[in-house]
Amino acid sequence: MGSEGLRWLLLGLCAVLCVSGRRARYTADWASLDARPLPAWYDDVKFGIFIHWGVFSVPSFGSEWFWWYWQGEKDPDYYLFMIKNYPKGFSYAEFAPGLKAEFFDPNEWAEIFEASGAKYVVFTSKHHEGFTNWESPTSWNWNSVDNGPHRDIVGELAAAVRKRKSMHFGLYHSLFEWFHPLYLSDKDSNFTKQDFIRNKLMPELYDLVTSYKPELIWSDGDWEAPDTYWNSTEFLAWLYNDSPVKDVIVVNDRWGQGCYCKHGGYFNCADKYTPPELPKHKWEKCNSVDTHSWGYRRNMKLSELMDLPTIIKDLVYTVALGGNYLLNIGPASDGQIPVIFQDRLLRIGEWLKVNGEAIYSTKPWRVQTENGTVPVWYTSTSSAVYATFHTNPKQFSFQLFVPKTSENTVVTLLGNPNPLKWAPLHSSGLVMLLPDLPSTPAEAWVIKLEGVA
Amino acid sequence: MGSEGLRWLLLGLCAVLCVSGRRARYTADWASLDARPLPAWYDDVKFGIFIHWGVFSVPSFGSEWFWWYWQGEKDPDYYLFMIKNYPKGFSYAEFAPGLKAEFFDPNEWAEIFEASGAKYVVFTSKHHEGFTNWESPTSWNWNSVDNGPHRDIVGELAAAVRKRKSMHFGLYHSLFEWFHPLYLSDKDSNFTKQDFIRNKLMPELYDLVTSYKPELIWSDGDWEAPDTYWNSTEFLAWLYNDSPVKDVIVVNDRWGQGCYCKHGGYFNCADKYTPPELPKHKWEKCNSVDTHSWGYRRNMKLSELMDLPTIIKDLVYTVALGGNYLLNIGPASDGQIPVIFQDRLLRIGEWLKVNGEAIYSTKPWRVQTENGTVPVWYTSTSSAVYATFHTNPKQFSFQLFVPKTSENTVVTLLGNPNPLKWAPLHSSGLVMLLPDLPSTPAEAWVIKLEGVA
Amino acid sequence: MGSEGLRWLLLGLCAVLCVSGRRARYTADWASLDARPLPAWYDDVKFGIFIHWGVFSVPSFGSEWFWWYWQGEKDPDYYLFMIKNYPKGFSYAEFAPGLKAEFFDPNEWAEIFEASGAKYVVFTSKHHEGFTNWESPTSWNWNSVDNGPHRDIVGELAAAVRKRKSMHFGLYHSLFEWFHPLYLSDKDSNFTKQDFIRNKLMPELYDLVTSYKPELIWSDGDWEAPDTYWNSTEFLAWLYNDSPVKDVIVVNDRWGQGCYCKHGGYFNCADKYTPPELPKHKWEKCNSVDTHSWGYRRNMKLSELMDLPTIIKDLVYTVALGGNYLLNIGPASDGQIPVIFQDRLLRIGEWLKVNGEAIYSTKPWRVQTENGTVPVWYTSTSSAVYATFHTNPKQFSFQLFVPKTSENTVVTLLGNPNPLKWAPLHSSGLVMLLPDLPSTPAEAWVIKLEGVA
Amino acid sequence: MGSEGLRWLLLGLCAVLCVSGRRARYTADWASLDARPLPAWYDDVKFGIFIHWGVFSVPSFGSEWFWWYWQGEKDPDYYLFMIKNYPKGFSYAEFAPGLKAEFFDPNEWAEIFEASGAKYVVFTSKHHEGFTNWESPTSWNWNSVDNGPHRDIVGELAAAVRKRKSMHFGLYHSLFEWFHPLYLSDKDSNFTKQDFIRNKLMPELYDLVTSYKPELIWSDGDWEAPDTYWNSTEFLAWLYNDSPVKDVIVVNDRWGQGCYCKHGGYFNCADKYTPPELPKHKWEKCNSVDTHSWGYRRNMKLSELMDLPTIIKDLVYTVALGGNYLLNIGPASDGQIPVIFQDRLLRIGEWLKVNGEAIYSTKPWRVQTENGTVPVWYTSTSSAVYATFHTNPKQFSFQLFVPKTSENTVVTLLGNPNPLKWAPLHSSGLVMLLPDLPSTPAEAWVIKLEGVA
Repeated sequence: MGSEGLRWLLLGLCAVLCVSGRRARYTADWASLDARPLPAWYDDVKFGIFIHWGVFSVPSFGSEWFWWYWQGEKDPDYYLFMIKNYPKGFSYAEFAPGLKAEFFDPNEWAEIFEASGAKYVVFTSKHHEGFTNWESPTSWNWNSVDNGPHRDIVGELAAAVRKRKSMHFGLYHSLFEWFHPLYLSDKDSNFTKQDFIRNKLMPELYDLVTSYKPELIWSDGDWEAPDTYWNSTEFLAWLYNDSPVKDVIVVNDRWGQGCYCKHGGYFNCADKYTPPELPKHKWEKCNSVDTHSWGYRRNMKLSELMDLPTIIKDLVYTVALGGNYLLNIGPASDGQIPVIFQDRLLRIGEWLKVNGEAIYSTKPWRVQTENGTVPVWYTSTSSAVYATFHTNPKQFSFQLFVPKTSENTVVTLLGNPNPLKWAPLHSSGLVMLLPDLPSTPAEAWVIKLEGVA
Repeated sequence: MGSEGLRWLLLGLCAVLCVSGRRARYTADWASLDARPLPAWYDDVKFGIFIHWGVFSVPSFGSEWFWWYWQGEKDPDYYLFMIKNYPKGFSYAEFAPGLKAEFFDPNEWAEIFEASGAKYVVFTSKHHEGFTNWESPTSWNWNSVDNGPHRDIVGELAAAVRKRKSMHFGLYHSLFEWFHPLYLSDKDSNFTKQDFIRNKLMPELYDLVTSYKPELIWSDGDWEAPDTYWNSTEFLAWLYNDSPVKDVIVVNDRWGQGCYCKHGGYFNCADKYTPPELPKHKWEKCNSVDTHSWGYRRNMKLSELMDLPTIIKDLVYTVALGGNYLLNIGPASDGQIPVIFQDRLLRIGEWLKVNGEAIYSTKPWRVQTENGTVPVWYTSTSSAVYATFHTNPKQFSFQLFVPKTSENTVVTLLGNPNPLKWAPLHSSGLVMLLPDLPSTPAEAWVIKLEGVA
Repeated sequence: MGSEGLRWLLLGLCAVLCVSGRRARYTADWASLDARPLPAWYDDVKFGIFIHWGVFSVPSFGSEWFWWYWQGEKDPDYYLFMIKNYPKGFSYAEFAPGLKAEFFDPNEWAEIFEASGAKYVVFTSKHHEGFTNWESPTSWNWNSVDNGPHRDIVGELAAAVRKRKSMHFGLYHSLFEWFHPLYLSDKDSNFTKQDFIRNKLMPELYDLVTSYKPELIWSDGDWEAPDTYWNSTEFLAWLYNDSPVKDVIVVNDRWGQGCYCKHGGYFNCADKYTPPELPKHKWEKCNSVDTHSWGYRRNMKLSELMDLPTIIKDLVYTVALGGNYLLNIGPASDGQIPVIFQDRLLRIGEWLKVNGEAIYSTKPWRVQTENGTVPVWYTSTSSAVYATFHTNPKQFSFQLFVPKTSENTVVTLLGNPNPLKWAPLHSSGLVMLLPDLPSTPAEAWVIKLEGVA
Repeated sequence: MGSEGLRWLLLGLCAVLCVSGRRARYTADWASLDARPLPAWYDDVKFGIFIHWGVFSVPSFGSEWFWWYWQGEKDPDYYLFMIKNYPKGFSYAEFAPGLKAEFFDPNEWAEIFEASGAKYVVFTSKHHEGFTNWESPTSWNWNSVDNGPHRDIVGELAAAVRKRKSMHFGLYHSLFEWFHPLYLSDKDSNFTKQDFIRNKLMPELYDLVTSYKPELIWSDGDWEAPDTYWNSTEFLAWLYNDSPVKDVIVVNDRWGQGCYCKHGGYFNCADKYTPPELPKHKWEKCNSVDTHSWGYRRNMKLSELMDLPTIIKDLVYTVALGGNYLLNIGPASDGQIPVIFQDRLLRIGEWLKVNGEAIYSTKPWRVQTENGTVPVWYTSTSSAVYATFHTNPKQFSFQLFVPKTSENTVVTLLGNPNPLKWAPLHSSGLVMLLPDLPSTPAEAWVIKLEGVA
């Protein structure tokens, strides 16, 4: 048995047997793990940036699933792209030297993320291609230090993000690897073998957590095998009990076939999933500015990108329903964030600078949305209720039917210094007199209601 | 004497001697050439797209003057960029194979240009680097067919632009070439020799005109030598008298040291030049979305780009002063127009769709600008005067002091179906009642005044 | 414990415990393993070809230890070579795509080897760089199928060699890998950990033997750690007891610090080692046509290569002392065997065609060499003694003092149909009358003595 | 008319009109030019090295006519080679950066040539591909300084060769260029235009002669057009009358359709041509060690190369018939001379060190060859006659029937210090007693006869 293997086995045993004086330890089963309270920071931050960057950023065509579509599915679009542009016999591995990252400046990235108003960042430490953006000892010559950038991308970005006190740093990590020979061989055995887990996955996850102390692990690629194959509960027990991030770590719900929307930390459920109504469990919606891909596509078109109003509406809706919003961008192989993405992020930031109090550290209100003069989405804090709307009503009189006003009710338009004149409506609700709405590319405005119920 | 040389000499002689029955011929001197009326289409179109694309799009760093800064000036930024990213001894010529243009789709370009509201396109047929974007016989192995894209970029783009009836197609062309041995040798002779002109420049210009029939030649790179060296007047005489585009061709003013702002067709004067007041001669302002470069820089930042309101203001000001506005973008080496540029262009188009009648086919008015409620710029047609403003007055009452109203005066806000209520002011001018100004990312609105003087 | 690990542990246990009906099994200790008789084919073949080919064939500069000299020792020659010819930050891994093997034709190789008279071939399955010339599942993306040639070089060559019935196929394999993270980490632990052994080395060796059934394993790279670290005795016990090649497999002596010249199969001792007198144990001398390198160096000079007479002398001396002679050549990255190596090999073959009976299947004689008219080296079979000499005596009378003639003694010059006239010398030895010696580039001739003692 | 054009026209006129005091000038017609005596050095040197090196050395496949076979003839072998190994759309121009010449050391080349016994060197300044191995101003970006090696290959090699006093330096130069647009356009005009001549060929030839002062111009590529198109006679008149090399320059006979074997300096006639009997005019046989190609082919096989005896026989036969022998080798793109070529050259040198007096500065004898004991070839000086033979007669008695001996006749075997015993034969000829012939890889021996007629 390898020493790595031994280590996690013992830790697993410990997870079952050891009890600390201070608190009970989590055991390696879902009942115990699911009972862990989510660290508080996560619900407060609301808005994060997701970054897909890897060898797929080199062909930068079609999707970050490039390798799979090309050689797994043999999709003709990808196939022809290769035929047309690369010599016969060119392999995916040969893209890696092209990941030059010559303009990669983690401080510039962090600055842009901060300016967007995001409070956390989730970066692809390793996607399904298996290329690790740090020098993983179990991914020799297939990582960002031995090849391509020759830099510790994860480490540099972690440091830059953390210099900004307001931001938290998390790591995306794929459990499976499309073409890893050990994985394929385990799969052939119907997952009765765990060679990939022992020789690759577990050493790698421990290394990642120990070396970079992420506050969030965004697990992915779990769907082909059960959590027992992935050793997920053992790993999580260690993560929650003994890892250096045990007090702050947040994870999602992709830890094995049938796991998502059911076990783990917060719920992502499917990609881009949005629940129809307020869920009981903390959740996160991930979405991508490029609606066709998570990784950078050089040939994306403007019309395929989410525009600013759509993004803001998506963010507001998500937060109103209790979710976090994780918005994805794909940097180029040279390490640049395409300027159109910079533009989107900075404009979100401009909107949040004015309206952020309706987002950060809020809770869902007793009602999530209503159709008054125009549709509004509600969020709340202990002292205020916020109603955000995305349609310019083009009239001064503006009605909300759900809030119950009182004598102390104060109504303001965020960004506007003067309280608005208002009057209660019959039974519940109020009508207010809007000022001219400021022109805003985001097309979203927030009414703040204090002293309502 | 080469047959090409003979051809232009004879044509030159003919320009002096021949007289057609229909009209007098231009002679190869500025007095005659400058007297030619500018073909009417040019003043009508007002807004064009300038495109810088060439081998410099491959390093895509710093500027389209990359080669010069690197090996002419030995600017340390460029020098270090090369040291850091390329093997020792790498030459500029070796960038050419990287100009792959794998995504270059001239119809996509033309569609984007058309959607921007532009009515003409000016493309770099050859920049100072000497690389020709068509298969020039005098630029063997240093052109887009023998190397890099292996496509006739000029020809493909010309065809795509012309499929859109509303657009005119023009070509940028640099007279000098930084490092052409024949040019350097002529220069060493103090321009007493013309080997470069005979063996390279003239054959190339004739080939370009004959093969692609551009409606505009945007000459550049003239400043090191007098027009007599460049044979400019002979060439223009041929162009105006005998070329296949003699009736429609428009040229600018860069035809020799001391020429600009003085001779040729319309005036560009210096790059990005704007006259302080209404000039007597038709002029054009060229400007670049990327304020630091005409060619694509992979490492440009959002803050270095002109934002939409700045561009619209620049356009309006230029047209008010009688100019055309030629806005530049730099596509990437893969043939993609960076999405942020697509975004700028499409939003200009959205604004022009509503407000274009204040731009296209207008003339300067008797007054160019005034500072009423907010500053406005005037343009006019035979039936209307347009006042464009870039500041939201945030009030309903809006005054203009210069227009003289009459009983028939009708005032409208472009994009708004209903005439505005207005009243004459004392002596001249009027006050009107503005509706709510529509939110627009361009931050520019147009008042149309009919029946004013 | 990984299934691979389990497998070899069980096999090891079995090696200790199981006894087959037919014969006793080898146990995993040197006493038992060293007692195994060497399969007979090996002593008969005498002459083999050694081939060094890998990623080092791409820079093809200095030595197959390129990586180590460059980045381990930081030897200035290698360092400057990289500075001068490659971009900054270029890594060794980026050489792999250059291993194109576009001209690699295993049948051509085998044909050349056969024409050289060689009876076995030893090919670098993996050198210290760790790049495997077959699709090793534990060397993902760092092998000849995932990268570079995209071909199973080991498999193709094995098939081609085996089509020639006269030739045996063996594999060179390096135990250590200069820069493998798991190896380095084991080394840091002072070899108390065996992660590299379990996750990489053992799976790989089992895969190699099972997949390609080599008849010879030429182990290397053992010197940094004891055999207990490498698990050498366990592996050999499996190899001798249970592997598919258990009856034919031959190995050398590089299985751990202090092992060589002491344990294992035949002895190589140090590279290019030649014993001073007849050894008791079967041995092999490996030597390289390029005296400066085992891998191909593009900048080798003629004067740095062994010439034909030197090679033949080396071969004869080695066989006279009971050794096998393994002569190395380094193919180029395109898969071509440099023509000068082809030339050396074919001329050896020409010599062996005439004189091979003095080499193949011979045994050392009772005396290995003597200085008669000129120095000779002796070999023998049951029916004849062969005396090979490398100096043209340039006289007809030729004396040997050691052989004891009889009435039945017959003396011939190989390649010459007629028996030579001879007469016995006083006490022992004989004098013979040589014919004109044929002109031969090899400068070596063989006297065959039948009926001598 | 370009200044270059003017220059050669005037020089041509001068060639017709000017008469120097010292000697009559050559006129630009074959009668005058052909009457020029060949500079004496050329007949003395006998043996030269021909070098083909250019962009074709990069694909290094098939032939130095690679470009033509690939894209002119579309030969399937070349076509498939490209399909298999390069991306779609890859152009010949893109090979140029691969001509790195990283190991090119002109002194090493010169040392090897000197060691071969060669007394002149002819290097491809420009082959049919048009790529110039010097910085030709009329071949911008398509020469060895702007691209690939970034070195003045012609200049460096000229300097290194000239450091060896015994060697003369010459340049191969192709008149036509397969794909030069100006050439193709001239050809389309049925050679009634001379744009290529004026803008490319003449400037280039004058530059080459003036800059590098070659002692030999090996013209080629003349066959598609008459000498009048190439301006050959004008150029030669300048070369003979006024160029800096007018006293020493030697040229061959390829100056226009129908020229070869008829006009110019010495005669090459067809490639590898050998006349059946002693020609009246000085001639040269060029031959290539690689019988399939003049440029380096990476995939050449040993069996496709001339072996040493064949080369020596070819050399001796050529010299006996009054010719010079120009032996070709093709260096690799990295600047290395493949070691097998080094081997051939050095062994020729070894033979010439012993037997060179039968070659250098000799004249054909009254009889060129006879079939005595074995076939011999004769050469002669004022004091001796040399008979070279390539078959080991394997007997001591050796007869020659043609030489007429006298009392003073002395017979020696070159390399052997002692005169041979001989006796006259009846009427003419002699019989001699040969010593043991030394073993020599060249398989050629020389009998020197002094005092014979």
